[in-house]
Amino acid sequence: MTVERFSGIYAPIATPFGADEEIAFPRLRDNLARWAGTRLGGLVVLGSNGEAVMLDAAEKERLIAFVRENFPPDRPVIAGTGSESTRKTIRLTRRAAELGAAAVLVLNPHFFKGAMTDSALKRFFLDVAEASTVPVILYNMPRNTGLNLSWQLVAELSCHPNIVGIKDSGGDIVQISQIIASSRPGFGVFAGSASFLLPTVLMGGVGGTLALANVVPDLCVEVLSFAQAGRLEAARELQIRLLPLNAAVTARWGVAGLKAALDLSGYYGGPPRRPVLPVGEGEKAQLRQMLRDLGVAVDQP
Amino acid sequence: MTVERFSGIYAPIATPFGADEEIAFPRLRDNLARWAGTRLGGLVVLGSNGEAVMLDAAEKERLIAFVRENFPPDRPVIAGTGSESTRKTIRLTRRAAELGAAAVLVLNPHFFKGAMTDSALKRFFLDVAEASTVPVILYNMPRNTGLNLSWQLVAELSCHPNIVGIKDSGGDIVQISQIIASSRPGFGVFAGSASFLLPTVLMGGVGGTLALANVVPDLCVEVLSFAQAGRLEAARELQIRLLPLNAAVTARWGVAGLKAALDLSGYYGGPPRRPVLPVGEGEKAQLRQMLRDLGVAVDQP
Amino acid sequence: MTVERFSGIYAPIATPFGADEEIAFPRLRDNLARWAGTRLGGLVVLGSNGEAVMLDAAEKERLIAFVRENFPPDRPVIAGTGSESTRKTIRLTRRAAELGAAAVLVLNPHFFKGAMTDSALKRFFLDVAEASTVPVILYNMPRNTGLNLSWQLVAELSCHPNIVGIKDSGGDIVQISQIIASSRPGFGVFAGSASFLLPTVLMGGVGGTLALANVVPDLCVEVLSFAQAGRLEAARELQIRLLPLNAAVTARWGVAGLKAALDLSGYYGGPPRRPVLPVGEGEKAQLRQMLRDLGVAVDQP
Amino acid sequence: MTVERFSGIYAPIATPFGADEEIAFPRLRDNLARWAGTRLGGLVVLGSNGEAVMLDAAEKERLIAFVRENFPPDRPVIAGTGSESTRKTIRLTRRAAELGAAAVLVLNPHFFKGAMTDSALKRFFLDVAEASTVPVILYNMPRNTGLNLSWQLVAELSCHPNIVGIKDSGGDIVQISQIIASSRPGFGVFAGSASFLLPTVLMGGVGGTLALANVVPDLCVEVLSFAQAGRLEAARELQIRLLPLNAAVTARWGVAGLKAALDLSGYYGGPPRRPVLPVGEGEKAQLRQMLRDLGVAVDQP
Repeated sequence: MTVERFSGIYAPIATPFGADEEIAFPRLRDNLARWAGTRLGGLVVLGSNGEAVMLDAAEKERLIAFVRENFPPDRPVIAGTGSESTRKTIRLTRRAAELGAAAVLVLNPHFFKGAMTDSALKRFFLDVAEASTVPVILYNMPRNTGLNLSWQLVAELSCHPNIVGIKDSGGDIVQISQIIASSRPGFGVFAGSASFLLPTVLMGGVGGTLALANVVPDLCVEVLSFAQAGRLEAARELQIRLLPLNAAVTARWGVAGLKAALDLSGYYGGPPRRPVLPVGEGEKAQLRQMLRDLGVAVDQP
Repeated sequence: MTVERFSGIYAPIATPFGADEEIAFPRLRDNLARWAGTRLGGLVVLGSNGEAVMLDAAEKERLIAFVRENFPPDRPVIAGTGSESTRKTIRLTRRAAELGAAAVLVLNPHFFKGAMTDSALKRFFLDVAEASTVPVILYNMPRNTGLNLSWQLVAELSCHPNIVGIKDSGGDIVQISQIIASSRPGFGVFAGSASFLLPTVLMGGVGGTLALANVVPDLCVEVLSFAQAGRLEAARELQIRLLPLNAAVTARWGVAGLKAALDLSGYYGGPPRRPVLPVGEGEKAQLRQMLRDLGVAVDQP
Repeated sequence: MTVERFSGIYAPIATPFGADEEIAFPRLRDNLARWAGTRLGGLVVLGSNGEAVMLDAAEKERLIAFVRENFPPDRPVIAGTGSESTRKTIRLTRRAAELGAAAVLVLNPHFFKGAMTDSALKRFFLDVAEASTVPVILYNMPRNTGLNLSWQLVAELSCHPNIVGIKDSGGDIVQISQIIASSRPGFGVFAGSASFLLPTVLMGGVGGTLALANVVPDLCVEVLSFAQAGRLEAARELQIRLLPLNAAVTARWGVAGLKAALDLSGYYGGPPRRPVLPVGEGEKAQLRQMLRDLGVAVDQP
Repeated sequence: MTVERFSGIYAPIATPFGADEEIAFPRLRDNLARWAGTRLGGLVVLGSNGEAVMLDAAEKERLIAFVRENFPPDRPVIAGTGSESTRKTIRLTRRAAELGAAAVLVLNPHFFKGAMTDSALKRFFLDVAEASTVPVILYNMPRNTGLNLSWQLVAELSCHPNIVGIKDSGGDIVQISQIIASSRPGFGVFAGSASFLLPTVLMGGVGGTLALANVVPDLCVEVLSFAQAGRLEAARELQIRLLPLNAAVTARWGVAGLKAALDLSGYYGGPPRRPVLPVGEGEKAQLRQMLRDLGVAVDQP
């Protein structure tokens, strides 16, 4: 199994909730239909932005199945399945495969930070990779986990035939370069945020799994296309134009910002689950302007 | 409802697993019987050391019920119920109360660190306190969560009549002093680790919820008793003697160290759930010596 | 040489500048006369609060000499002499001794953080201790240096007969306890900030070197006296009353806050050297209130 | 004054010391002669790698003069002049200009971290820029200073006509992109470490000031040349080959590693000033291999 199948731009989709905080499946269907009309390579369900940590086991399975059923079958759906215990991660990984996930994106356990040595993490990912019937993609997300997967560990893990790539959201371009340099040929590195998509791809990365791709998927795809076509100047210009909105839907206002941006641009965002608070009117006004600056048709206030 | 009922030393008990990683209830019963013979004020089930993040919803409920049923009814059992979402926290809080928990210990959500502003955290704890039929104790654990509950936030929350105290595992004695100085009278501050039990109590804290109290409960109680009796020199001497073993079963080797120390001292510890790795023979030898230094009868190697 | 001579409360004095940023020696003389009328055990010149990093070599020597000459000879003056290089630290240490310093307070080098291993720091402090004709007191200041002196390192260094104590400004009461437990008898631990003076002393510390002691020296001395007299309740109450002003003149507004508090309470503070900015009117109003809350006669606005 | 004059690759040169820790000027002359034979655009004297914090005022002036006199006059020498106080920074900046420095590289003050707000830093850099007769280049070095210059601050400062660029050693490619996007046209961004030279240049940076350029200057220049010639694949391959040695002479073994690598490759490195310890034989063996891997003729062990 090679990683090429997963190249390109993926959106780690937001999980839409109604006012009662239940999953709003009809709204999700509408979003999926719209994403299907873009040049996205595929979707990730149950990523960080999908508020996976807010969902219970039954909701997770239902979501994987629903997204898979409502998105074009020729485009992969990847499921986030990492949790604190090995057994729980394996259980969901297997279910995800049965429900049609083409691969799993596995965040490392992180609550017991002191215990998550390279030995423990190596054992964890190898156990999951052995047990999984679909390819495993590592997921490094230091801002949320408080831990970083070292390039040495990633290089070692890349030797397992069922570990095919990494989504690195840390944004450390040196680490990304070192992973590319030291992992086995065919192991794919995906930018974990649109703000460093172009540098990642120029250093040899194969795509991106980007919160921003929920909102402006085709602009994200265009950065990649420009880069692949050798149009560096155009790629750089677009990359730089995407920075403000990307910051707004990630580090600055997080999933609440992402959902507000979806609401403003014709998708359904809705409220985050508590305790995450929705953004206020001031933030929405700024988001509206950022979207307009990117040429996105924005709902009137 | 006042906090006096929960004063004293509590053990946040380890969750024993068998070789198959299933909860070993008979072993837990033996441990509970032994803890019942100590001067512990009560127990906490589903704390960090209880590997709560490793357990699924059904296991959690079963554990609360089992511990409550197998521990003397006059001594409180407190249940850890914090999780990433408000609704899930409320759900488990209510179940815990039904199952006999005398109070709940609520760790703050922390995955979406950037979104966990004081406003969001305040709303979270107030929502839980409103919904709970038993008293709520805040739980601050910066080493694992990557977040710190500020004393200003704690002071505000202390005004809610159903928020009766805090277990502060951060160990910042200035913050602990400021909480004591600024929270409402009757709000209780518990040391979250035995290494700063005495300073906490001397500054006005009412007890401790201590991993170390799994292993040497009566020695922990003795520190408190000495302090309350004004025997500062004896208290200090004992406090200092407890430092090495306490470090070993918390920051240094974590829950794996705690379980090994239990195994060595006549309790059942057993393996942690993967991916946490058990400690090696070298660590066990050191633990054995530390236990001996404290006068604990230790199993032969 | 034992540490008893340096027990008690020391003020690490602010260096007064005129509007031209030159050292205002006459103003300093007035401050020194006033501090001489308090129960301070002694002074520290060229500490962090003395803006030592802002001063050149000639200014440093002149300051040591001036303070020594203008303060009662029976009370020790300690000079801060730590700098990035061993040779520069030794040079100033020797000059300080010649100029009458009773001891030196040595901050660890910290610019090359990665190179400041325990081996390098051990070598540094031993080299200085060997070369110094007066006792050496270690100085741990993680907030400014970005490094922490581990208790293991301090315990080792405490075996050198010319290293007599440590000013620990980190405020980690567990580390302070471990230093007390593991260093040689007679090695003195001083609280580095008034906010944890009482816990430090209760755990076995011998005094404090406290920015706050610039402004309210006798209140700081009183905390210590209460503790030594076994009047724990009075000590605790006063300790807690000191927290707001202490925060204001340390972590919150730093040396600018300290100088404003001096100006408000009858000493001369004056401006910090640029680029440190003076506090604004809002901060001053808060400081004025905090001083009044402590019963300090405050200049009218 | 525009930044073009300073484009290309600069080496922030090591300061050679003899066994007595005095500056070894004859050895420095030899090094300078050799660097003159490379394609380096110019040199930086008194950078972090130059152990500027270890040098006294007289040594600093002598070094600037010596380097300027012993390096081809058509190639710029830039002097590091940042220190903790504004006045000291201005004083050295003016002397550096008199001694022939073409520009100054100004590290931000950082000891009083809490006081180094954007307001204070802005005032600092503007004061220096106003007082300087030569162009000012900002210097961001979070690993050593514990502070980061935000892109918002840099964008504001870039509007001053005498602030012409920044050496950013933080390596955050998103921040570097944002600086490029938001600073005034003509403001130059230089990679502060060779490990992210290519990504920086591809995003619009104009060169690099690289510790590694002490040892393998022409290889660093080649990365830049490949990038400018549109030979992305060759640039990437070389960039990746440079990663291990670059890590060794920066984050991993610091200035001690840099000096050992100089010694091994025909330059004079010599010992760092204490308390920085020289690297051991094991590290030297690894450095020797890394140099060989890059095709550098290495002295026999």
